[in-house]
Amino acid sequence: MLVGDQTIEIGGCEQRLDGAKQDKVIGTDEFVHCVMETKAGSARKPFSALVSRVRRQSAIAGAGHPCNGCGNATKLKSAGVSSVGVVVPFEDKEQGQASIEGLVGLTRTDMERVNAMILSRTGSDVTMIPEVANHLISSGGKRLRPMLTLATAALCGYRGEGHVKLAASVEFMHTATLLHDDVVDESDMRRGKLAARMVWGNEASVLVGDFLLGQAFKMMVEVGSLRALDILSTAAAVIAEGEVMQLAAAKNTATTEDEYLAVIRGKTAELFAAACEVGPVIAESPKADAAACRSYGLNLGIAFQLIDDALDYGGVANKLGKNTGDDFREGKITLPVVLSFRRGDETERAFWRRTLQDGEIKDGDLEEAQAIMRRHRALDDTIERAQHYAKMAKDALGLFPSSPMKQALNETVDFCVARAH
Amino acid sequence: MLVGDQTIEIGGCEQRLDGAKQDKVIGTDEFVHCVMETKAGSARKPFSALVSRVRRQSAIAGAGHPCNGCGNATKLKSAGVSSVGVVVPFEDKEQGQASIEGLVGLTRTDMERVNAMILSRTGSDVTMIPEVANHLISSGGKRLRPMLTLATAALCGYRGEGHVKLAASVEFMHTATLLHDDVVDESDMRRGKLAARMVWGNEASVLVGDFLLGQAFKMMVEVGSLRALDILSTAAAVIAEGEVMQLAAAKNTATTEDEYLAVIRGKTAELFAAACEVGPVIAESPKADAAACRSYGLNLGIAFQLIDDALDYGGVANKLGKNTGDDFREGKITLPVVLSFRRGDETERAFWRRTLQDGEIKDGDLEEAQAIMRRHRALDDTIERAQHYAKMAKDALGLFPSSPMKQALNETVDFCVARAH
Repeated sequence: MLVGDQTIEIGGCEQRLDGAKQDKVIGTDEFVHCVMETKAGSARKPFSALVSRVRRQSAIAGAGHPCNGCGNATKLKSAGVSSVGVVVPFEDKEQGQASIEGLVGLTRTDMERVNAMILSRTGSDVTMIPEVANHLISSGGKRLRPMLTLATAALCGYRGEGHVKLAASVEFMHTATLLHDDVVDESDMRRGKLAARMVWGNEASVLVGDFLLGQAFKMMVEVGSLRALDILSTAAAVIAEGEVMQLAAAKNTATTEDEYLAVIRGKTAELFAAACEVGPVIAESPKADAAACRSYGLNLGIAFQLIDDALDYGGVANKLGKNTGDDFREGKITLPVVLSFRRGDETERAFWRRTLQDGEIKDGDLEEAQAIMRRHRALDDTIERAQHYAKMAKDALGLFPSSPMKQALNETVDFCVARAH
Repeated sequence: MLVGDQTIEIGGCEQRLDGAKQDKVIGTDEFVHCVMETKAGSARKPFSALVSRVRRQSAIAGAGHPCNGCGNATKLKSAGVSSVGVVVPFEDKEQGQASIEGLVGLTRTDMERVNAMILSRTGSDVTMIPEVANHLISSGGKRLRPMLTLATAALCGYRGEGHVKLAASVEFMHTATLLHDDVVDESDMRRGKLAARMVWGNEASVLVGDFLLGQAFKMMVEVGSLRALDILSTAAAVIAEGEVMQLAAAKNTATTEDEYLAVIRGKTAELFAAACEVGPVIAESPKADAAACRSYGLNLGIAFQLIDDALDYGGVANKLGKNTGDDFREGKITLPVVLSFRRGDETERAFWRRTLQDGEIKDGDLEEAQAIMRRHRALDDTIERAQHYAKMAKDALGLFPSSPMKQALNETVDFCVARAH
């Protein structure tokens, strides 16, 4: 049976007991029960964690068979069916993130402190501030950026307390950017919820963003590392510069790949780079280690954004996620469009100009956009381009000796790219 | 039979008449004679040109058989052997360059004018100036950069005269950089000849470089395009900045891939980018076309330099060219070293520090360096990285309609990467 998660290695999963072909992929609706034996050491993830995730899925009907090595599974309600299997569906968003579980696990304790710090620093007597801020902050982002700050600090053997405030600063900078972005892009939705500007208005979104930026700098100053302050404030300036650049380049279907890369370096990669660089910096690591972590973050950020770009058009599998088509509807020029536009004929270029440049989108246009992209391998090649940066990110960490944290960081890169498949 | 040149399509080459396997690659020492039929239109290159190149190779012993459709080949001296074939050895430098022949052919007339311009503008009453300048200028560089200026001007339909002076300026800027580089790097040799500084001294090399830069700017001003002046003078500043950056980064084995890329953007890619951008600019093409040509040049330049880096260690085939080991002996940190250092163990890192950082090179160290690179696939991956930029370069030209010049420019990219194989 195919399991949609590379990192799980549970011997029992490899056997289908219902006589069907082993490599047949079945969906959650076909799921009836799990019987599995966990070999000692063969499962990277505790079995109970897997089962508890499985139990949260609504489509599951469990049969009451006894489970070897699995206390939780026996509690699943019987549905009177005897065929057996464990299904980890490809579409499951939680499951798709499994390979950053190493990073999540290794930073869990510190992340709890970061989350507490985030909560405490959004407090204000002006009640609208915590309302607006927490609307977005509590909306279930992955908090990958602050995790990277904690992880690179740990990778460099940091033993102090400053990394928690720096990580919270990084998340505040990210949140501020999102609040401002939604105003600039006139977005209605963010992470499947109404954008803050739709609830409290543009002015509140802009100002609460500024408040969070201010809080971020306050925390950085409290940490007291001038170099970390320099790195993060430079990043803030570069990000703002990138936004202005994107504004100027917006709706230009003839944007070159280089110009687009410059935009996403500013928009996404710079904060990843800074988040990763401040870890070794507060650990007072050698310059080469800080440069390595920065390079890791920068290239991970580029790969991450390119994969996001591909996913926004459904990825190579043409899966429909909740954000599919957002970039298209907002007229954003992303790499799949850049490649399709340059590889296309005049009819196709007219299509891109009408839809993205002039914003005249009709029913069926998103499907037509996806068809053009397939024709020119634009999504495949966007992912191939992302893989180049992913390789650079992993090579950047080469200087560090092997450790669980280094492995977790490398798996994070693989995870970011694998999302598109 | 394998023919070491993708661009030759001669039907007769596909048949081995001596009974050996068709896909067996044979070397020049096994070569005895050529018999081939040129189908009308099937050969991209005139048969006589191929034969005259074949005749120049010392390892060939020709048999006296009559050749169909080949007057020249019948004149080859008999060696009394009857097996038959045409060999185009992989090692043949002239042959390896065949795929820029499109570019060379399409710019030939203009390049003659550029060469005349170069000759006339190195004239000076101070006799040392033409001596030093022509020592390098006449030493057989490919003049790829000025060709790119002529080619992109033609691609954009330019009909004036300014492209010749701009192309000559680009070559002068390149020559000036080489003269100055040799002084900075304390190089003894350049293009298989003694470096100018070894003949006339460092001072003369620096000053004649300055003279050439001055002449370059004079020619640009004569052309009268302020935008072209802006592009080329910005490039000159960026190149100088890159050299200083390289000086600062020199001998640092822990240089990251990103830092190294920033160095070669300045050192190599910026002039390629400027050379390609001024073509559309004097043709008064739309901004998108200028950006496309700039992007083509920039990424071609990066790919070109990365392949040069790989070739300096013999490439994947570990061929020994005349420059093999130059970078190693000069302690230059290039991408194969960056990757090997990061992927290696402490013993290997100590090796790189001793040889490149401390400059203590013993007999057999170059071979050891090559062995370490093979162990970590550093040369293969340098070439793979180059291919990424090569793809970006080709996609950049997507906006232009099909034309022989566009094809020649695309083939130039393939040629640059194919050199390493």
